[in-house]
Amino acid sequence: MIQVAIIGYGTVGSGVAEVIERNAEGIARKAGQPIAVKYICDIRDFPGDPNEGKLCKDFGVVLKDPEVSVVVESIGGLKPAYQFVKDSLLAGKSVVTSNKELVATHGWELLQIAKERGIQFLFEASVGGGTPIIRPIYQCMAANEFTEIAGILNGTTNFMLTKMKREDLSFDEALKLAQSLGYAETTDPSADVDGHDACRKICILGSLAFGRHIFPAQVPTEGIRAITTADMAAAGRLGYAIKLIGRAKRLEDGRVLAEVCPALLPGESQLASVSDVYNGILVRSDMLGDVLFYGRGAGKLPTASAVVSDIIDCVKSEDVHRTLFWVKSEEEFLADPAEDVLRRYLRLEGGSQEALSKAAAAAFGAPELVQPSGEGIVCILPAQSGKAFAAGIAALPDWAKVATALKVLPY
Amino acid sequence: MIQVAIIGYGTVGSGVAEVIERNAEGIARKAGQPIAVKYICDIRDFPGDPNEGKLCKDFGVVLKDPEVSVVVESIGGLKPAYQFVKDSLLAGKSVVTSNKELVATHGWELLQIAKERGIQFLFEASVGGGTPIIRPIYQCMAANEFTEIAGILNGTTNFMLTKMKREDLSFDEALKLAQSLGYAETTDPSADVDGHDACRKICILGSLAFGRHIFPAQVPTEGIRAITTADMAAAGRLGYAIKLIGRAKRLEDGRVLAEVCPALLPGESQLASVSDVYNGILVRSDMLGDVLFYGRGAGKLPTASAVVSDIIDCVKSEDVHRTLFWVKSEEEFLADPAEDVLRRYLRLEGGSQEALSKAAAAAFGAPELVQPSGEGIVCILPAQSGKAFAAGIAALPDWAKVATALKVLPY
Repeated sequence: MIQVAIIGYGTVGSGVAEVIERNAEGIARKAGQPIAVKYICDIRDFPGDPNEGKLCKDFGVVLKDPEVSVVVESIGGLKPAYQFVKDSLLAGKSVVTSNKELVATHGWELLQIAKERGIQFLFEASVGGGTPIIRPIYQCMAANEFTEIAGILNGTTNFMLTKMKREDLSFDEALKLAQSLGYAETTDPSADVDGHDACRKICILGSLAFGRHIFPAQVPTEGIRAITTADMAAAGRLGYAIKLIGRAKRLEDGRVLAEVCPALLPGESQLASVSDVYNGILVRSDMLGDVLFYGRGAGKLPTASAVVSDIIDCVKSEDVHRTLFWVKSEEEFLADPAEDVLRRYLRLEGGSQEALSKAAAAAFGAPELVQPSGEGIVCILPAQSGKAFAAGIAALPDWAKVATALKVLPY
Repeated sequence: MIQVAIIGYGTVGSGVAEVIERNAEGIARKAGQPIAVKYICDIRDFPGDPNEGKLCKDFGVVLKDPEVSVVVESIGGLKPAYQFVKDSLLAGKSVVTSNKELVATHGWELLQIAKERGIQFLFEASVGGGTPIIRPIYQCMAANEFTEIAGILNGTTNFMLTKMKREDLSFDEALKLAQSLGYAETTDPSADVDGHDACRKICILGSLAFGRHIFPAQVPTEGIRAITTADMAAAGRLGYAIKLIGRAKRLEDGRVLAEVCPALLPGESQLASVSDVYNGILVRSDMLGDVLFYGRGAGKLPTASAVVSDIIDCVKSEDVHRTLFWVKSEEEFLADPAEDVLRRYLRLEGGSQEALSKAAAAAFGAPELVQPSGEGIVCILPAQSGKAFAAGIAALPDWAKVATALKVLPY
């Protein structure tokens, strides 16, 4: 019998208790022994809850109980989650979490503690909301060297972009719709729409694939506030889709480039067809080529089922941290995304179509595609670094106004 | 140091040797020790091959060498692969294979032997050609009960269907193109175009998801020979794509329904957007909902990299067969696919559009969609069992000829 403590009885925590109860038989068969929840820690009261008898307000009780071998952290955020997780690991208890902020901020340190003590620190549910992605990277693809990971990592913004494209909604209208459906926070939707959530997730995926911790503060992050319906329509006419992409790419010199930005993807690409609240994660490696993982990126039971699969893994004796591991990064590990040589999408206003086309060609080289758009043009510029592109922007005549500039990504 | 023997030095076998050599450092780190190829068994000679010194024509030598702990079977087919694999397992050596025919035919027995001896029998490369799918099912999704698996499992036929759709090629033209590119066998392309390859793969996935062996002979299997350009075009106009689907579905009474057939999928579905030689596998489960795995379904290095990841797993001590396991099935485990209640696509000829529409409505109930097509109509019929559909076909007037009948699948 494996005794588990759940810390934080919100959406994920209560989902974990539900999955453990509902699929008890299959879980016991797969783990080789039954799994039971002994404690549920939360500072709140839950009168009448079926698990009321397991509630416990003092985390110290859990820490001191030798029967608890696995702690599920589902509080979210850093305080007090970080301290609770660290204390649990130091007390020799394996930890499973869905907390992306915690892993993106303190992953290297917590992995180190777990490895030293021969216990597990697992977080499959922190990315993809239950869709298998962490384990496939560190285990199924263990014979590969990774070259790039790029994903639609945030379901809320993908839902909004899908609505903006299909129903011609503005950013504000799409946000209101997402809020009314409970997909976006009503008080402060910034974690989603400004890309912070996607940033934490690409930090986790990039750290895992490339072996060194990538901190959220090191990753240039731009959300989707600047995307207009004019851009959505123009991108569609040019044969592209606009998606919020988190990506991490290994350069030839071994450094890694990571960023979160809205970008154009070729319309026929598999990532471009990921719509609504779904997530899609493209993993590019030397032997296997491109592999894509697709699934609902959030939800109580999907996330909880990934947590429970991790609990089952905690029972096993294998040394998971031989492959699931990364160290703290040195400064020179990360490259400036402006180094990446990419094609660019540009919407220009302020002159005639002919004058704007000429100005673009003079500043950036002849565009691959030019189309009229509203009061100006949209164009796809030839591949160039961010530095060259910035120089081109500076070289544009004053009357040519940049309405939108986006990267075109090769996925 | 893990000593490996590769049995069969063809495309996959030589790829395995290449991956082990090229990514030696990363593989050693992940396995915790170096992995080396000690023997390569093949009845052929390979003069001048860099691995010539490891060649060995007598499998008995491998069996008797206690230093060899992992045998890679990459001969293909059943004879002599089955005997070699069984002997290896009985001799206490773990086996990794990419041989789908072997696993689909003898999987339950080989898993049983491996489980009893506490060694591994792994076959990630047998489905999806390297794309992680076997391990995600038995490990990452361990907290779920599976309800359905459906996939585009054969890259050759998917390439042909893509060409038939996009370039208006006939079946024969698409087959010739696939043969000229090396995607289909020139002497006998039957394994691909008649669905046998997809059948073996759905047997493996279905056995794994539902815990009992599904034998290829038990699975009604239909290929794509009957698909015409008229059907491809008509399906497109109706908003569907035609794909060759292998599927296994658990019914409410616990029985499993498995089949391989060309079928219509809604155009906006993620599976419908899987094109060219790519594979896509949809896994539906109670907690996680729909998850899709997408990747190139074949190729020397992708397949070999999955074999090598399995070799790395062989090094670990975990009891993998608690979750990677199935038993031989009883007859009553499998349901007749005709029990499934599905919408149907029908192309009818032999009368006026009005007369054909009336005849279809009288035989099957009013169609959801009817469109003119060449010398007749195409229509989408309301959901009905295969038995009801067959009765409807029998009830059609003699002058109404069924040109094509396909299932419409809900993915």
